[in-house]
Amino acid sequence: MTLDLRDRIRDVPDFPVEGVVFKDLMPLIADPVYFRETIGRLSEWARPREPDLVLGAEARGFIFGAALAYALGSGFIAARKPGKLPRETVEVVYALEYGSDSLQVHRDAVPPGSRVIVLDDVLATGGTAKAKVELVEGLGGVVVGIEFVLELSFLNGREKLTGYDVHSLVTY
Amino acid sequence: MTLDLRDRIRDVPDFPVEGVVFKDLMPLIADPVYFRETIGRLSEWARPREPDLVLGAEARGFIFGAALAYALGSGFIAARKPGKLPRETVEVVYALEYGSDSLQVHRDAVPPGSRVIVLDDVLATGGTAKAKVELVEGLGGVVVGIEFVLELSFLNGREKLTGYDVHSLVTY
Repeated sequence: MTLDLRDRIRDVPDFPVEGVVFKDLMPLIADPVYFRETIGRLSEWARPREPDLVLGAEARGFIFGAALAYALGSGFIAARKPGKLPRETVEVVYALEYGSDSLQVHRDAVPPGSRVIVLDDVLATGGTAKAKVELVEGLGGVVVGIEFVLELSFLNGREKLTGYDVHSLVTY
Repeated sequence: MTLDLRDRIRDVPDFPVEGVVFKDLMPLIADPVYFRETIGRLSEWARPREPDLVLGAEARGFIFGAALAYALGSGFIAARKPGKLPRETVEVVYALEYGSDSLQVHRDAVPPGSRVIVLDDVLATGGTAKAKVELVEGLGGVVVGIEFVLELSFLNGREKLTGYDVHSLVTY
C-alpha cells in the first residue's frame, strides 16, 4: 500500500497570521513510518543525480536536509540566518512579501564543482529556494536538483526556478 | 582505522564573543564519511534503549537529531523557540548566563509512555538539556538517554543531568 503523506500533514488555520492556512509537517516527522517514507522518496529522486552535498536552510530545512544527506551518504551544508555561523561567510538577501531576509553559508562550504541538492520543506513563492541556489552557484557549486516535501502550487514558485530540476513530494 | 571526530571540529576563537573559543561542527556534517560516522556512533548507543522518538532543539539540534531519528527508524520531535510552532504548545523557561530563554513543543508531541532520546550538539552548562528533559517528562514521556556530539566537561553540565544516562562522542 502506498502511504499518502497528506495523512500526516495538518492544516492549521490562521497561522502565522489570520487568513493563512499553515501546513504543519510536525506530525509527518514524528511518525517513524511516514518520516522514513518521506526521506526515502526524497533520496530516491536525488540519488541518481549523485550529489556530494545537500544544502538546507534554518530551521525546518535542517530536519529534512540532514536526514536526506545521511540517507544519501552525502555531506550537509547549513544555510543560516546572519550572525549564526562562526567563520567567514557569503550572504544572499532575498525579498519577502514585506521586507527582506538573508541567508549565509561559510565561504568554504561548497567546494567548486560540488554537486548539490538544495532542499527545503515548503516551496511557496520560490524566493528562499532561489536564494539558496545563488549561494551555491556563487561559490562555484552545481545545483543538481531542488527538492521540497510540499509545494503550494498556487504561489507559482516553480517559475522562479526555471531551468532547474525541481521535485516535490506533495502538491497543494 | 578509527576516525577521530576532532579532525572535523574546528576551533573559532572569539565567537560569539571575545575570549570564547567556539567549537564549529559544520566541517563534521559537511564531510560525508565523518557525518555518517557521527550518526552511526550516536545510534549505536541509542538503539538498545529502544527509543520511539528523538527530540532535538532548534537549530543545530535539528541536524543531528533528525539524522539520528532517521537512522534509528524513530520519529523526530522539534523543540522550538516561542512562536514557531503552529498549534497548542507547552513551554519551558531556562536560565542562561545572562537572562533566560525558552523552548516549546506541541502539546501532543510526546504521547504518554513514549521512550525519548534527547539529543543536542553540545553539552555546555546542561541548562538546555535539562529544559528538554522537563518538556518530555512534563508530557508523560520517558527519557531513555541524553546524547551530545560534543561535551565541554569543564562546564560540569553532567551535574545537572544526574540520574540520567548521558553519552557524548567527543569531550574537551
